[in-house]
Amino acid sequence: MSVDTAHPELPSDAEPELVERQFADLFEAPHPLVLESGETFGPIRVAYQTYGTLSPNRDNVIFICHALTGDAHVAGRRNPEDRKPGWWDAFVGPGKGIDTNQFFVVCANVFGGCQGTTGPSSVDMQTGIPFGPDFPFITVADIVKVHHELLRHLGIEKVHALVGGSLGGMQVLEWVARYPNQVGAAVVLASGAKLNAQGIAFNAVGRRAIFMDPLFREGRYYDETVKPRFGLALARMVAHITYLSEQSIEMKFGRRLQNSDNFAYDLSKETEFQIESYLHYQGKRFVERFDANSYIALTRAMDYFNLAETHGGLTAALSRTNARFLVVSYTTDWLFPTSQSREIVRALAETGRHVTFTELDSPFGHDAFLIESELPRLESIVRPFLDRAYRDLHKAARGASAASPPNR
Amino acid sequence: MSVDTAHPELPSDAEPELVERQFADLFEAPHPLVLESGETFGPIRVAYQTYGTLSPNRDNVIFICHALTGDAHVAGRRNPEDRKPGWWDAFVGPGKGIDTNQFFVVCANVFGGCQGTTGPSSVDMQTGIPFGPDFPFITVADIVKVHHELLRHLGIEKVHALVGGSLGGMQVLEWVARYPNQVGAAVVLASGAKLNAQGIAFNAVGRRAIFMDPLFREGRYYDETVKPRFGLALARMVAHITYLSEQSIEMKFGRRLQNSDNFAYDLSKETEFQIESYLHYQGKRFVERFDANSYIALTRAMDYFNLAETHGGLTAALSRTNARFLVVSYTTDWLFPTSQSREIVRALAETGRHVTFTELDSPFGHDAFLIESELPRLESIVRPFLDRAYRDLHKAARGASAASPPNR
Repeated sequence: MSVDTAHPELPSDAEPELVERQFADLFEAPHPLVLESGETFGPIRVAYQTYGTLSPNRDNVIFICHALTGDAHVAGRRNPEDRKPGWWDAFVGPGKGIDTNQFFVVCANVFGGCQGTTGPSSVDMQTGIPFGPDFPFITVADIVKVHHELLRHLGIEKVHALVGGSLGGMQVLEWVARYPNQVGAAVVLASGAKLNAQGIAFNAVGRRAIFMDPLFREGRYYDETVKPRFGLALARMVAHITYLSEQSIEMKFGRRLQNSDNFAYDLSKETEFQIESYLHYQGKRFVERFDANSYIALTRAMDYFNLAETHGGLTAALSRTNARFLVVSYTTDWLFPTSQSREIVRALAETGRHVTFTELDSPFGHDAFLIESELPRLESIVRPFLDRAYRDLHKAARGASAASPPNR
Repeated sequence: MSVDTAHPELPSDAEPELVERQFADLFEAPHPLVLESGETFGPIRVAYQTYGTLSPNRDNVIFICHALTGDAHVAGRRNPEDRKPGWWDAFVGPGKGIDTNQFFVVCANVFGGCQGTTGPSSVDMQTGIPFGPDFPFITVADIVKVHHELLRHLGIEKVHALVGGSLGGMQVLEWVARYPNQVGAAVVLASGAKLNAQGIAFNAVGRRAIFMDPLFREGRYYDETVKPRFGLALARMVAHITYLSEQSIEMKFGRRLQNSDNFAYDLSKETEFQIESYLHYQGKRFVERFDANSYIALTRAMDYFNLAETHGGLTAALSRTNARFLVVSYTTDWLFPTSQSREIVRALAETGRHVTFTELDSPFGHDAFLIESELPRLESIVRPFLDRAYRDLHKAARGASAASPPNR
């Protein structure tokens, strides 16, 4: 469903793969979504993008669950003029880690987000103004229920594989626990079955920064010309530190100064060290694309997520599915340390599930699954896993259909 | 110089050791302090406390360098009614890790601080209002120069030992590099010869929180009834996370909720998890005792500190002293990881200096050197070290005086 548009000004080998953002309207009256909080909510518009071609028997779907501040724009360009492609362009595409020649890839912006799917910044049709703080409290399960409904809407019953990193990995885990028979394979990257207390602490700091911003106005800022950008930028700065590692910060910035060889001895100068300048820049860029209320809602969803608690234990949560798993962690990831992956792997092993686990040695911390230079190694693991799963499941499907009477 | 006041209402075995805060006025005209920035500044009033008795030949002085937000009130109580004793009361006192029966202990509030020593919140005698942002930029070296001048003022030429953790350890290192012949022994706890880039990043987040607080008013808030407490509290929250460890946060709080067994599903509730409640409480308490401008000044001093750079290399910095060293790190300290201590130890070893190094296994992260339950172990190392150093140096002194003609 990607759109190939010839663009005469670009040489043919640099021709960008163009992709359209599409929308689905779900949970319309009288069928609202029942949230984990007990509330009901609808309608929900979902922004999604697809790559590759759906096979005739609809068995080649890979759903990518994006992370906290990601979006549906996983790869390609929406306009030939786009300066940058989607956030995982190096990993998703023809012949890439998730091969769109083989698979039909779907990625949807999460419920509660701010990149096209209904979230706090969307207009409440009953009031004519954005929901703001009146947007309901959402959880990872709610996000997954919306994804699941999107696939139903697209006429897709089974998913060959779910793939997600960080908050995306949490969605993958919740999905297999909630819809155990829908999923053939699950790829969980740099994630965990719950956020640890240190992660909750950092999220609390980020939310505090937003709440203390006077421009936040308790979440009712959409009519204002100036958005609560200082608080949100600060939230991003502190979160960004947790996405990196001590090692990568040291390698990339160390104690180098930004514009001089000598100290300025000026307390009002906030960006004297390169690392400071980098974090301030990341904060500034982030507020251009993200909404403060969405940030609060999604970090809280992440805090609340606890697969074991919701499903009667980790083993119980993972025993209902026949999906095979690939679990990947990174040595220097301290937001989701390898111990978190091991916990998942242990529970899977205890239920006799097929699970491949690898801890990749990388200096790039939590962000490693998004860093281009780290992707060839990830590809060398993910691609054969998806491939083998596809062949095995097809064989099983063929075997099953051969064994079943045709009119059954 | 501690004051023993009988207090009839307390049983004799709980009689608190009462200690007075004292003041010294230093760097008065025409002898201002020459700062590392090149500026000059004076006068400087220093708040200090002492414990134990100075020996007749003034050879039993231990100077304690406090950490970022510490103060001179290291042990004992200032009033019999004080709810809590000084910040290192379990470690400093008669028969304790730093034995005030044997040693004369001095601890001074740092220059630039806000606990009695001249800092941004002090009144500028030329304008009659607090310095605020006009307070000069200070460095760890400037702090040490003030401590050194205090001792001169007290008639103390030599220091038996310097002891400091974290920013206090940086002061110890700077001191031995700057006044190499003044120090007999140096105890450096949970510290380093420089702050790493990740530490600078967290400090930058804290300062950003203060700067974005509208009540900060670019540092001129002393006349206002409401102080910039939100930004400073947030700075403390994020710093506090770096003082703990993933392990200790998990042990102490985990994912437990503060007031309920069930989620509130309420985005406006900021203290739902115990760890959130704890951090908010820490932030709130901190602003009662600390000044935002001091926080900015002292974190910047910490960022700037780089022993090797200032003294022509780490080995050069440490080769000028004959002091013997005790270096202690903690396994779960990620603000000053053990690698930082190893760097110091290696440089000392390369110069043939006497150095004892130990990495203590503790779940309590950077804060371990302040945690009461960890102090017996620290005591078991520090006390013999100080003792042995004292005996050795005395023997050397006796030997030297015996070898020298009496009228030399």
